Amino acid sequence: MSDEQATTARKNAVTMEKLVNLCKRRGIVFPTSEIYGGLGSTYDYGPLGTELKRNVKEAWWREMVQSRSDVLGLDSAIFQHPRTWEASGHLENFTDPMVDCKNCKLRFRADKVAGPQCPECGGELTPARQFNLMFKTFMGPVEDTASTVFLRPETAQGIFANFQNLVDTQRVKLPFGVAQIGKSFRNEITTENFIFRTREFEQMEMEFFIKPETGEEEKWYRYWVEFRADWHVRYGLRADHLRRREHAADELSHYSSGTTDLEYLYPFGWGELEGIAKRGSFDLDQHARASGRDLSYFDEDAKRRYRPWVIEPALGVDRAMLAFMLDAYDEDVVENEERIVMRFNPRLAPIKVAVYPLLRKGGQPEKAVAVREMLARHFTTAYDQAGSIGRRYRRQDEVGTPFGVTIDHQTMEDDTVTLRDRDTTRQERYPIGALVEVLNGKVGWAAA
Amino acid sequence: MSDEQATTARKNAVTMEKLVNLCKRRGIVFPTSEIYGGLGSTYDYGPLGTELKRNVKEAWWREMVQSRSDVLGLDSAIFQHPRTWEASGHLENFTDPMVDCKNCKLRFRADKVAGPQCPECGGELTPARQFNLMFKTFMGPVEDTASTVFLRPETAQGIFANFQNLVDTQRVKLPFGVAQIGKSFRNEITTENFIFRTREFEQMEMEFFIKPETGEEEKWYRYWVEFRADWHVRYGLRADHLRRREHAADELSHYSSGTTDLEYLYPFGWGELEGIAKRGSFDLDQHARASGRDLSYFDEDAKRRYRPWVIEPALGVDRAMLAFMLDAYDEDVVENEERIVMRFNPRLAPIKVAVYPLLRKGGQPEKAVAVREMLARHFTTAYDQAGSIGRRYRRQDEVGTPFGVTIDHQTMEDDTVTLRDRDTTRQERYPIGALVEVLNGKVGWAAA
Repeated sequence: MSDEQATTARKNAVTMEKLVNLCKRRGIVFPTSEIYGGLGSTYDYGPLGTELKRNVKEAWWREMVQSRSDVLGLDSAIFQHPRTWEASGHLENFTDPMVDCKNCKLRFRADKVAGPQCPECGGELTPARQFNLMFKTFMGPVEDTASTVFLRPETAQGIFANFQNLVDTQRVKLPFGVAQIGKSFRNEITTENFIFRTREFEQMEMEFFIKPETGEEEKWYRYWVEFRADWHVRYGLRADHLRRREHAADELSHYSSGTTDLEYLYPFGWGELEGIAKRGSFDLDQHARASGRDLSYFDEDAKRRYRPWVIEPALGVDRAMLAFMLDAYDEDVVENEERIVMRFNPRLAPIKVAVYPLLRKGGQPEKAVAVREMLARHFTTAYDQAGSIGRRYRRQDEVGTPFGVTIDHQTMEDDTVTLRDRDTTRQERYPIGALVEVLNGKVGWAAA
Repeated sequence: MSDEQATTARKNAVTMEKLVNLCKRRGIVFPTSEIYGGLGSTYDYGPLGTELKRNVKEAWWREMVQSRSDVLGLDSAIFQHPRTWEASGHLENFTDPMVDCKNCKLRFRADKVAGPQCPECGGELTPARQFNLMFKTFMGPVEDTASTVFLRPETAQGIFANFQNLVDTQRVKLPFGVAQIGKSFRNEITTENFIFRTREFEQMEMEFFIKPETGEEEKWYRYWVEFRADWHVRYGLRADHLRRREHAADELSHYSSGTTDLEYLYPFGWGELEGIAKRGSFDLDQHARASGRDLSYFDEDAKRRYRPWVIEPALGVDRAMLAFMLDAYDEDVVENEERIVMRFNPRLAPIKVAVYPLLRKGGQPEKAVAVREMLARHFTTAYDQAGSIGRRYRRQDEVGTPFGVTIDHQTMEDDTVTLRDRDTTRQERYPIGALVEVLNGKVGWAAA
């Protein structure tokens, strides 16, 4: 890490604690089941976090599926047939080595323990054993091994298992991708760093099927690494907080012949944000063998059948939210007053526009409510009439609301309002009738 | 059931089978893990089903949360602290009575078995025992009872458990609602009827907190029953396929003092679509007792604290999709040819607009690809150049695409295209430059 980066990291290390506090204070992230003492490393998203999450997923879906002609969407179940995980290698390989302390009985990930002794009590540790990270449960009314099912540890296998259905029904031509967003579950021994690593999390994964040729593989691998890095920066990550790191041979997953992590400079150091992996035909081969199905693709130009290779960009929704929040967090001084301001890309901002009556009289509150109702048909909105106008602006700056509409005495005369910009704090005057179009240009997705 | 309704039901009974076939054939719904023989009553949504599901959820979220000033969103975890389910009564009460056949060992829901004998083999049945419907799993690396957690059987409890957090951070005033969309899991003994009853499903639930007064309760209960019924009709359900049915005292859930089901006339008869329940202060009372927290609301006007009562509209996403698909399904004759046409409300339609070159020459395909790319920034699109134009229209009619843009020889001269309406099959000519605005008016949500 360079000195400059180390400085940034230290600055951010302060920010992490402040961010967690802000998330709790403003209803972005709550610890799950807090009234019962919490549930280790599980989180609920409050009203603002829910909108942020919706927006992050929407940004991904629009660019990875909707606006492309070469990617299809899918939404497969969390429960898949248990043989899925035999074939995929997860039953055998999706494990962490763990050691137990013979004295205090605590359990640790073997690679997190430095010496031969328990880091808690100094007791003797057992040899490392493999611990499978999949959650299991029992489907149907009888608890026997025949009905053991797993909560998926990745969404990807639902895509591979549907490969033949997709090829048979969707008239696809290589190269094409299949993308999905959904919950996955990993029974991590060690969870850490707020929403960075949790046992329940949401993924955005895409399997991009290509001709089984090294040249094609290299081309699309590079394409997706760059496309995904660009996406993160476009939605608000600092380019100098993002780096590409190729996995060394000994850290590759069992299915991969090459992986690039997009790493983000978290307050706790560089860590994985997104992985782009060459999966080859490993998954289709395995499912073909296990199911007895062909799972091949007929190449009309080459007049032959083969199993495509795969490039997979896989991003955690929660982890992306954390990175976007960290880089959005800022403190500055406005009108001689310190403020916290979340500089979200407007498309990710939980609330797009807040509406304020300058005064609680003269018909201003009623007018403001009417303007808010009009805007709420198009945007997520907030309404605030409590306290000084400066204090109300600060409340919205703190959660990253990019625009504020203030109803004042002039509004009552000529139906114009001021539109305040979160970042510059400058205000411009617009007719109420122009607000939807103006805001749409500034914060809107392309429609529908 | 009246004669007229019975006729409709019979007509629909044909449709159910056709619908399941259409869903498979066009990639709307696939059986999960089909290559491994399927996983009892679990389904994956294909590319078109995924978009339909996204749209159904969006229609709910926009009307229940975004456009209202009195409802907040939430996104709580599937894993909640186990004491949640003790307090909510699910551990004790969320059960089905079941009987086992002593001869063939099959298990049945007791209320589905008519006599004292096994419906399969005629063998002797055991007395009924209670079977809890929650899936359980083990969190953390040690499988012991201390780490047993459940997959939530409803999203609602995540809302109640966060009540204090929401009141403390969101500056809410009664009445207000908290809404969320997410997966829930019920280990049903009997699953049936395609996606009508599955063990893994998605819910859209809203808890509407009101003053603890009978008059308020009755007013809001009626309000939500009517609002929800209206929503279903507005997005495409036939009013005569929807009815309100109040639960009799002996069928009320343990938490409810009054429930109205919105029932839909499925091909297999009237069945639950959505439930609107009076939950009183049952859940907050239970969680307050179990957690030792107050979980009350301070009423500034009345100058006193109390626990609000609750009205809950709860809808299954998958079940709503089934109803919308059933009522969208139609067959008619166009140009002397029979066609299947899914008459989806344009906002729910998986694909909003398809683009076709009339001929595969004269620059038409290239032009069509360019038009599709332009439209794809705004809408879900399809492109089709294979086969006769009539056949291509039929393919899109069958999946409910409301509009089609055809590039023909005139397009190459004056940059106008025809816009075809799925239902009337009529075509109107528009400049390419006007398409986004025209389509936006016809299919778009209010933006962002």
